[in-house]
Amino acid sequence: MKEELIKLILAFRENRNWEQFHNPKDLAISLSIEASELLENFQWKSSEEAVESKKEQIADELADVLVYAVYLAQSLDLDLEDIILTKLKKNEAKYPIEKAFGKKDKYTDL
Amino acid sequence: MKEELIKLILAFRENRNWEQFHNPKDLAISLSIEASELLENFQWKSSEEAVESKKEQIADELADVLVYAVYLAQSLDLDLEDIILTKLKKNEAKYPIEKAFGKKDKYTDL
Amino acid sequence: MKEELIKLILAFRENRNWEQFHNPKDLAISLSIEASELLENFQWKSSEEAVESKKEQIADELADVLVYAVYLAQSLDLDLEDIILTKLKKNEAKYPIEKAFGKKDKYTDL
Amino acid sequence: MKEELIKLILAFRENRNWEQFHNPKDLAISLSIEASELLENFQWKSSEEAVESKKEQIADELADVLVYAVYLAQSLDLDLEDIILTKLKKNEAKYPIEKAFGKKDKYTDL
Repeated sequence: MKEELIKLILAFRENRNWEQFHNPKDLAISLSIEASELLENFQWKSSEEAVESKKEQIADELADVLVYAVYLAQSLDLDLEDIILTKLKKNEAKYPIEKAFGKKDKYTDL
Repeated sequence: MKEELIKLILAFRENRNWEQFHNPKDLAISLSIEASELLENFQWKSSEEAVESKKEQIADELADVLVYAVYLAQSLDLDLEDIILTKLKKNEAKYPIEKAFGKKDKYTDL
Repeated sequence: MKEELIKLILAFRENRNWEQFHNPKDLAISLSIEASELLENFQWKSSEEAVESKKEQIADELADVLVYAVYLAQSLDLDLEDIILTKLKKNEAKYPIEKAFGKKDKYTDL
Repeated sequence: MKEELIKLILAFRENRNWEQFHNPKDLAISLSIEASELLENFQWKSSEEAVESKKEQIADELADVLVYAVYLAQSLDLDLEDIILTKLKKNEAKYPIEKAFGKKDKYTDL
């Protein structure tokens, strides 16, 4: 994510004096709530119906998830791109191509 | 997020032929499950205890959330930075500084 | 739920001296995590596939959700059957039959 | 849960002709969304503050969780009390009193 955008996200919070509420546990709760609100747009619908009728809401909720991801990363002093790279390497070990190709199973079931 | 990193994330999936499972509804389910696994690291713990004893696991789960965010955005043809900017503008209207300063209430309760 | 079963559920906890961790907020977190573990059994699968291959796991996770519901109700001094009756009445007002019949929309969209 | 109450819950749905939407996967999604709405009452609050200011909303969301649990159990032909008894036995094996007494760790960490 661009440094400039991260600054905007953090400034939004500073301007409202909300850092005082943003401990990592409550941020993790909030991120989970937003992910659930994202999912709510798909409730009782096929994937296609949801995308057709709720695309803007889905985009908004996905943005909320990302905003909390930025706050949580900042409070833990984590760099988003670093942790993704680290996790991709672990996922490569958990899901080697020759075992996981075309399979939807969890690594524990492969 | 850097174009290069997004390409790595998408390549991870292509190499395993997993796009076939990745419809937006199942991606939204998965994003919500990962957010919940992130939260599990804080279960029964204070925020401080969790960060002290589970920081690596928290980083890994946060990375999983972000990876699914990239897949979902790609499947909906959304740009992550664009949707964040759009949502920040909406949040500024919902939470004007003079009303929201230092308050933890939802905008509907402000 | 039978009084006798509720007693068993509470005894399980007392025998392990776990009430000390079971404040309502952490119980709500745990209930949400268990609901997500339930959902995980449906990840990347059609409803039918999941029921066929994961029925026992689904039953176990649903039981975990109910066990936490009992703990949360007990910590708030709520009776499970009372709160369901109260909520059904509210839902009847929100979703009057003549408006909601055969519709999957949220009441705010009806 | 009393047979009579289960009948009321199922009648609520039949009267609205909603069984057509209630496949197990979408019910699992809905249960997870309701659990998250329950948790939202605790967002940015201590457990005590939430219980003091949001007890009615917490009770309502807990009721929604239970209503979906009844629908899901019915669609899978599961008896709620049976699955709880079965799971309590498994939990006793996972968390033997002598190992788990006073410990908040997951069984995999005990």
